Amino acid sequence: MTETADRRVIPVILSGGAGTRLWPLSVADRPKQFLALAGDESLLRQTARRVRDPARFGAPTIVASRGHGIAILGQLGEEGVAAAELILEPCARNTAAAIALAAVGSDEDDLLLVLPSDHAIADEAAFHAAIEAALPLAREDWLITFGIAPDRPETGYGYIRRGEPLARGVFRADRFVEKPDRATAEEYLAAGGYDWNAGIFLFRTAAFLQALEEYEPAILAAAREALEKGSREDGCVLPDEAAFARSPSLPVDVAVMERSSRVAVAPCDMGWSDLGSWDALHQLGPSDSAGNVLGGDTIAVDSKNCLIRSDGPTIVTVGVSDLIVVASGDAVLVVPRGQSQRVREALDALAGRGQKDAESES
Amino acid sequence: MTETADRRVIPVILSGGAGTRLWPLSVADRPKQFLALAGDESLLRQTARRVRDPARFGAPTIVASRGHGIAILGQLGEEGVAAAELILEPCARNTAAAIALAAVGSDEDDLLLVLPSDHAIADEAAFHAAIEAALPLAREDWLITFGIAPDRPETGYGYIRRGEPLARGVFRADRFVEKPDRATAEEYLAAGGYDWNAGIFLFRTAAFLQALEEYEPAILAAAREALEKGSREDGCVLPDEAAFARSPSLPVDVAVMERSSRVAVAPCDMGWSDLGSWDALHQLGPSDSAGNVLGGDTIAVDSKNCLIRSDGPTIVTVGVSDLIVVASGDAVLVVPRGQSQRVREALDALAGRGQKDAESES
Repeated sequence: MTETADRRVIPVILSGGAGTRLWPLSVADRPKQFLALAGDESLLRQTARRVRDPARFGAPTIVASRGHGIAILGQLGEEGVAAAELILEPCARNTAAAIALAAVGSDEDDLLLVLPSDHAIADEAAFHAAIEAALPLAREDWLITFGIAPDRPETGYGYIRRGEPLARGVFRADRFVEKPDRATAEEYLAAGGYDWNAGIFLFRTAAFLQALEEYEPAILAAAREALEKGSREDGCVLPDEAAFARSPSLPVDVAVMERSSRVAVAPCDMGWSDLGSWDALHQLGPSDSAGNVLGGDTIAVDSKNCLIRSDGPTIVTVGVSDLIVVASGDAVLVVPRGQSQRVREALDALAGRGQKDAESES
Repeated sequence: MTETADRRVIPVILSGGAGTRLWPLSVADRPKQFLALAGDESLLRQTARRVRDPARFGAPTIVASRGHGIAILGQLGEEGVAAAELILEPCARNTAAAIALAAVGSDEDDLLLVLPSDHAIADEAAFHAAIEAALPLAREDWLITFGIAPDRPETGYGYIRRGEPLARGVFRADRFVEKPDRATAEEYLAAGGYDWNAGIFLFRTAAFLQALEEYEPAILAAAREALEKGSREDGCVLPDEAAFARSPSLPVDVAVMERSSRVAVAPCDMGWSDLGSWDALHQLGPSDSAGNVLGGDTIAVDSKNCLIRSDGPTIVTVGVSDLIVVASGDAVLVVPRGQSQRVREALDALAGRGQKDAESES
């Protein structure tokens, strides 16, 4: 703890997403991080509380969509979290640009811990231990990513191959692999030595900015100009829209992590889930004795291995299995378990309905 | 037509049912006959219109639940049907007692055509032709039931075995068989000569009352007393509750038709459905090119052979088959196609939920 005390870790919480993979529950004005998907509190509040220990962490910087400013302040205020900085993006430019906004506004010796606001982490002690293990390397300007040991051949995540050990529990990142196909994912699982890229990072501000300058200078330039020309309102930072809009829109993995030779992976068995699909929520549970994960006003009669969730009507299933049924707002989704990424097709069908109706009549 | 003109047929429309087999769409205060389940109009209005030709039919007698009086008058008024008599039952005593109320109030030479109010008949001409064929025998005091040729080994209906021909298109009813098991139903289908008992009857008032006197005199006595002690209000007949409540509660099939030796069956290929389950509604269609029967705000993406119906939220299914999904009021039902009789289990689960919760906590 003496090492961490001389320069506290600054959490950078990213709340810019407006995911649609949990439609109909998650919609643009009610994105996933504001929902209580794992436990009784929103994922954002859980994320903030996970890094609230003042012995370990400074006050967080939060980067969010401009439209969500009031919701964020409300949620964190209830949690007793005062953001050191709340940066409200005028438009979405993916994670590299969002982190750049936070980094440009930080001291160059700050250690930034980048956290998505919509993940679940069951074992906080394991998470904190992994941070401790990685801190000495972060101080030596390694860019750290936290890795999750795969328990299934998931094709929805990027993978990192572990290289030589750099310290106890930290390895050189040998290779980043974007979402693999099923056969490749199965190979990785069988071979071992691969971790999922969870999108959680730790680095010194100066090390990140230097890498960004080297690989994506336009992102760094846009962030700097957006902050210079931006304003402050009610204590929030409002970057200039025209300047920020010129930033390339890239995930930080692609912009920096996959290109730098000074990247390390800290594997961490912390009960992580990105809650990125209804199937992920089913895996997270908790399930009843028949393998059903139920939420809201639902009754599963002679049904097994289903995810059934409602924030409105009573859903009753009888005699079904391996089905996802979600009612929210004015919509009900029904899709087989294992196919929940097809929510996209539901949204496409909804969007295209008027057009298709017209076509079928002509 | 000269034969029918001398004494017109009086339709007796039975609207006493409060079926739950179409939950969540059909509930106690909105029973099936008031719903537009086959076409754009309610089944009750379609039933009334089916027997509106004054050359064939007199004004109908309608027997309904007391709580539905206003709804009935509203629906039939819109249809331009004036009921000769609207009898509002103070309590439900099944079809034998309901028909007894209508018969006791009729002239003994009236020819009563008993019609459930919640069936679909696609081919009205075939229906009228079967009535014509049966009328001479009804005048000779045969009790006529109209039979439907089975097209599947249905276990939800009673069957009638045809005996000797009595006239062109009319046979002596050789035997009534209550809902058979699957193997027996398959035998009947293969053997031929069996018809489904559709619950549609034709008889002279005097013949029915005489049979009722013989087999179930308590039903007849209760109906007589209920009408004698009853009242009239706003043109409706209100049978006395205490008297009517004493009536045995039996289907007319059991009370009379299965016991009399003077029963005839008139097979009739009239596109009949009792719409008695979600599966029956799926069979009736119309279906899209993938075999889906859709109603209300629904989208079926890569889905086949489903029944999807909503009177509220947008239902979107992706990649499912052979599923029944119905949203109505504050409930959503999901059950595999072919198992829609299990709606009963859904209702039992709903009713028992509070109790079960308490038990599981103890």
